[in-house]
Amino acid sequence: MVTGERFLVEYLITGDEHEAYNKVQDICVEQTVEFPTELILDNWIKEDVVGKIESFEPIQVNLFQAVVSYAVETTAYELTQLLNVIYGNISLKPGILVNKIDLSPKLLDSFRGPHFGRSGLRSLLGVKGRPLLFTAIKPMGLSAAELGKLAYRFARGGIDIIKDDHGLTNQPFAAFADRVKSCARAVEKANQENGSNSIYVANITGPSDEVVARARLAKQLGARGLLLAPALVGFDTMRLVAEDDTIALPIFSHPAFMGSYTASENNGISHFALYGQITRLAGADATIYPNFGGRFSFSQQICESIVQGTSVPMGNIKPIFPSPGGGLTLELIPELLKVYGQEVIFLMGGGLVKRSPDIEQNCQYFKHLIESSIEIE
Amino acid sequence: MVTGERFLVEYLITGDEHEAYNKVQDICVEQTVEFPTELILDNWIKEDVVGKIESFEPIQVNLFQAVVSYAVETTAYELTQLLNVIYGNISLKPGILVNKIDLSPKLLDSFRGPHFGRSGLRSLLGVKGRPLLFTAIKPMGLSAAELGKLAYRFARGGIDIIKDDHGLTNQPFAAFADRVKSCARAVEKANQENGSNSIYVANITGPSDEVVARARLAKQLGARGLLLAPALVGFDTMRLVAEDDTIALPIFSHPAFMGSYTASENNGISHFALYGQITRLAGADATIYPNFGGRFSFSQQICESIVQGTSVPMGNIKPIFPSPGGGLTLELIPELLKVYGQEVIFLMGGGLVKRSPDIEQNCQYFKHLIESSIEIE
Repeated sequence: MVTGERFLVEYLITGDEHEAYNKVQDICVEQTVEFPTELILDNWIKEDVVGKIESFEPIQVNLFQAVVSYAVETTAYELTQLLNVIYGNISLKPGILVNKIDLSPKLLDSFRGPHFGRSGLRSLLGVKGRPLLFTAIKPMGLSAAELGKLAYRFARGGIDIIKDDHGLTNQPFAAFADRVKSCARAVEKANQENGSNSIYVANITGPSDEVVARARLAKQLGARGLLLAPALVGFDTMRLVAEDDTIALPIFSHPAFMGSYTASENNGISHFALYGQITRLAGADATIYPNFGGRFSFSQQICESIVQGTSVPMGNIKPIFPSPGGGLTLELIPELLKVYGQEVIFLMGGGLVKRSPDIEQNCQYFKHLIESSIEIE
Repeated sequence: MVTGERFLVEYLITGDEHEAYNKVQDICVEQTVEFPTELILDNWIKEDVVGKIESFEPIQVNLFQAVVSYAVETTAYELTQLLNVIYGNISLKPGILVNKIDLSPKLLDSFRGPHFGRSGLRSLLGVKGRPLLFTAIKPMGLSAAELGKLAYRFARGGIDIIKDDHGLTNQPFAAFADRVKSCARAVEKANQENGSNSIYVANITGPSDEVVARARLAKQLGARGLLLAPALVGFDTMRLVAEDDTIALPIFSHPAFMGSYTASENNGISHFALYGQITRLAGADATIYPNFGGRFSFSQQICESIVQGTSVPMGNIKPIFPSPGGGLTLELIPELLKVYGQEVIFLMGGGLVKRSPDIEQNCQYFKHLIESSIEIE
């Protein structure tokens, strides 16, 4: 009834040893059969379908690391059901955090992950040997024409990737198609003038039945990348867009509405697994997250764990770019280069506008900072 | 540029007064323009698009209640973007919890909410004046035929609503169409024999591009209700199913993967708003949540707040059923009747199987408990 192939989930469990071990036993049942095991008549269900404790180790006082294995068949090879097995009902129980996932070959083969990944995105942009530069056009309220002008200035200044702010969807101020057309044209015009290859990334986060249509329309109107917030549309909607070969544009994952999964030390999903592994499995080519030292609360250590999650071996699933943002300023760049090295996309929004009224010059300075630091190395 | 209509979000903010007030000011910007306000040139954007603090009150030491209003246009009348304005980026910041939402008429009119609601579901089932009885067929691993047999026994025993366990999607043990066909037929057979009107509810939680197709197939195969986990598929996918008049089946919302939004006292969304208001806005006719005293951690007070969220006035959006589950036993029923009254759906899974090997008799006893308590009142 099962192939015997199993995948692993590492949980961090809070409690004393007895309590923590009971929680792990409970996870094995809750996440699979959700039924009193003593009443299950089929032995193979008890043996194979119920999760198995593979290891259980103390890591500090009242904190245990437990690895549970599950039969791959429990997931039906669906991302939604995989997430359900990993952390469905137990998200409602205190003291259980998903620390890491370790998927088996057959399961990994059933997902394509990112279409581009790090090297694909570099090829698309034609940029080697330096971090990629990323910005957002805003504020909400500007017209499609005004947003286009802003996109033009960023592209003229040499920013590689120019995205919609994640709150721009289809507001009356700048309806989706108008905005995308205006911004895509503006970036293309700057590219022709500069001889450069910047891309405009359209935000397609929106109604469930419109996401794919917006992706296609965006492509048709000249967008060369897509922004999606998986916690708003569902991770599987991102997978759907990523696996659609008629779309075939790089996807930038936005963390809006995702914060609660990492808000507690003893509930949720680790930054490594959520922003790294799961976002990658869902097909993002880059994962945006709030950088340390900005206006959010992630620590440097957390950010480094996300970087690890973007590149930890996952079978055929390509490594993706970490993309720290949320309050980056030009002053921080030298330090950030030390932390992140070259394989990163720096997302700077307000910081590029604050330096001086001349946005193009601010962008050129940003690029200069990045390029000169590389030469010094 | 805006109509002037605004909607309200009540946040609970942790911190001392100065810190908390700064956080609320930050919310107004972060959730809308996400841009340094001093650099915004258009006055109307600063005045109308940026959120406004409507009130700010201490409620206990280091805890403040703040009401922020937003222009309805910021939401683009999309559920995804509405959730983004309410709690997108700030989900990533510590010390901010969404306590309550108060949507304006135009915004409420742009959502249909549940197709049935409490009274519609009662009409469909033909049950008045008592709580509805609800159970789940499991464990995962049983074949479609075995699950059908179980559904038959529950229906023969008089359970009103018989659903798939939320982990049954499209596993090789019992593929979706086989399972739905088997269970729908079994319940229909029992109805004919009993002269009753039980409904089988198919779990359609699954890949983004298959949810609607599964809903239609389930209906075609005889399912008379649908189970969906909005945290897995996205709340807007639930809305899409609920608003599709070619489907028109009651929707039961499952809380899998949703726990982290309510895991912390100073981050996330209140149970009232999440399991009540938002689930309702997304079109569920009943909201399943873990009952107090069971194997999860919600308190009685929390459960009562969910009940309030299912029926608080929300314009044209119908009241829906609270559906406590997760470890309900027959012994608890008398107490639960006192807490919940009649407008509730009791979800009992394992508890109906544990009492004796005769499932039909256990179900009859469950129904008897409910009916006799009503007569006594």
